[in-house]
Amino acid sequence: MSRFWSPALHDLTPYTPGEQPRQRLVKLNTNENPYAPAPGVRDLLDHFDTQQLRLYPDPESTALRQTLAEVYQVPVECIFVGNGSDEVLALAFAAFFRQPEPLLMPSLSYSFYPVYCNLYGINAERIPLAEDWSVDLDAFDRPNGGIAIANPNAPTGHAHKRDAIANLLARQKDKVVLVDEAYVDFGAESCLPLIPEHDNLLIVSTFSKSRSLAGLRIGFAIGSRELIEGLERIKNAFNSYPIDRLAEQVAIVSLKDQEHFEKTRQAIIDTRTWSVEALRQRHFDVLPSNANFVLARPTTRPAVEVFNALREQGIVVRYFNTPELSDWLRISIGTDDEMQQLINALDGILPGEGQHP
Amino acid sequence: MSRFWSPALHDLTPYTPGEQPRQRLVKLNTNENPYAPAPGVRDLLDHFDTQQLRLYPDPESTALRQTLAEVYQVPVECIFVGNGSDEVLALAFAAFFRQPEPLLMPSLSYSFYPVYCNLYGINAERIPLAEDWSVDLDAFDRPNGGIAIANPNAPTGHAHKRDAIANLLARQKDKVVLVDEAYVDFGAESCLPLIPEHDNLLIVSTFSKSRSLAGLRIGFAIGSRELIEGLERIKNAFNSYPIDRLAEQVAIVSLKDQEHFEKTRQAIIDTRTWSVEALRQRHFDVLPSNANFVLARPTTRPAVEVFNALREQGIVVRYFNTPELSDWLRISIGTDDEMQQLINALDGILPGEGQHP
Repeated sequence: MSRFWSPALHDLTPYTPGEQPRQRLVKLNTNENPYAPAPGVRDLLDHFDTQQLRLYPDPESTALRQTLAEVYQVPVECIFVGNGSDEVLALAFAAFFRQPEPLLMPSLSYSFYPVYCNLYGINAERIPLAEDWSVDLDAFDRPNGGIAIANPNAPTGHAHKRDAIANLLARQKDKVVLVDEAYVDFGAESCLPLIPEHDNLLIVSTFSKSRSLAGLRIGFAIGSRELIEGLERIKNAFNSYPIDRLAEQVAIVSLKDQEHFEKTRQAIIDTRTWSVEALRQRHFDVLPSNANFVLARPTTRPAVEVFNALREQGIVVRYFNTPELSDWLRISIGTDDEMQQLINALDGILPGEGQHP
Repeated sequence: MSRFWSPALHDLTPYTPGEQPRQRLVKLNTNENPYAPAPGVRDLLDHFDTQQLRLYPDPESTALRQTLAEVYQVPVECIFVGNGSDEVLALAFAAFFRQPEPLLMPSLSYSFYPVYCNLYGINAERIPLAEDWSVDLDAFDRPNGGIAIANPNAPTGHAHKRDAIANLLARQKDKVVLVDEAYVDFGAESCLPLIPEHDNLLIVSTFSKSRSLAGLRIGFAIGSRELIEGLERIKNAFNSYPIDRLAEQVAIVSLKDQEHFEKTRQAIIDTRTWSVEALRQRHFDVLPSNANFVLARPTTRPAVEVFNALREQGIVVRYFNTPELSDWLRISIGTDDEMQQLINALDGILPGEGQHP
């Protein structure tokens, strides 16, 4: 607290990012990709003209948006880019959700959403999950000033079929429906084909997960021209140049290497399949996941004890100390080797384990 | 206009950044540094482990803040970094200036300040410049919810002595005084030595000008712990990771090369000296500048005609089509060679010129 702060600052509860440990660990806590980015990134850095860095970037990131337009087959005017999808989300909440009626979001979803609401004074209504912790889209049929969902949802990994979201968009055609597709490439259906028919759909996505570029901070949004124009207006009142020259070029290299993208995302899906099975064999309840993480509940020892015991062995997963989640662990999908280390460690930690091959 | 936009979005007037031409020109319009960044940047890119990019950055940019702390001799807790000083300014306006009383700023200063006020609904009072277009600090002794000035001021280049700002800080000790030092390294006195004694001082600065890294988007603020904590709170409610892994490392390399920094900033000061003289010989009124640009008024031909004629020859300067500035041109200081090209072009454009050696 300080006499210098704006009154609104005193009530702000910031987002808590996952730990970024400085020592070498098996790091399964922030849903990073275990594989390196496209190999062309090395070549780009080798040949990048550092003299370019003295010049401001293109404020519209035209080259990157054009490459996104080619890869995702949408007009370039329907694409917005920002400094990570967190920034894109923050700008979208400001642009669309400061409305007289409440924003609707699942009661359990990306924990940054309520922080943005707090930042902008947006009244949010949290819609309870279904019994199986899936998001019940029918429950969003109520008065609202917009809807924000993640598909797949975090931290549950639950995904909707595209048709289910198309129905929601049709029922809510005068309200912006933001679909956060940060994890979509790991097994869910993207809403991209719905863009031409639904001017109220805003898809937000990121290079941080399936493109192995969390360290670079590149996010993007795809939507109708009027939604993208709204984002541009607010961005140009906040920071004209969110994407730096190096990041823009690296992102383009990444987008152009479709083969690396397909190979690494499939590897993660395959690793997830056997990891879920191995966790279930060790008496974890594991929610079905379409993302690069699983939400898993140990049933033979309290989650917090498992979390601490893993950490002692240099394996970091995510533990949320909240009433809803304190029995659960969110475990990012690493390489086969990292997941095997996790499983081996669990065999030493859990009572009666160790008999598995 | 769109039915999807938040009501507040309709009244927002975005900032207009200077043109970023895609073809090769003598580019003297956005106050970039004409010299390359520290040569160590090349070496950094050669050895940068691209595998690192798959991991989120340190959300607190500790390594960069520690290097800034060493270079500027302030505690690391007194340093904040962001995605360009535009983002740092935007966060500072939100953190400190949303107050019941109006924010005071010079009637002519960085044109992004009123845009932030518009974005946050901050009531701003513009304090007229003195007759000679300097900023009259005594005129800021009036009821206020904070003060924002640039030192040197943009686009005039006028700078205050440190003592004058120290007096203002003492008179306004319960109000945040933001001093934007984007251009300070080109000949003005930094307020850095005032930090320990004035907890209401927030210095905002950038790597875009004197460190030749406009393309990289790195800004920072230095102030008392309570001001920095205020910035951190709002940043962590907006975007946890504003600085990417590559940018952080490049910024550190730049900070450590003091020799390159000194050499290039002195070169710009020297070039400015003779350029001002050459413009005056050609009947320009030139305001005394402590920045890497000059504000100059051609007296023998209208500014807009000179602007257009220069542009036809591939030389871009900044023309502001506003009542206050429409007689003036803002000219960034380039290399000696670029400035000579400008002068040669003027000799062909202005009536009766061409007789200069």
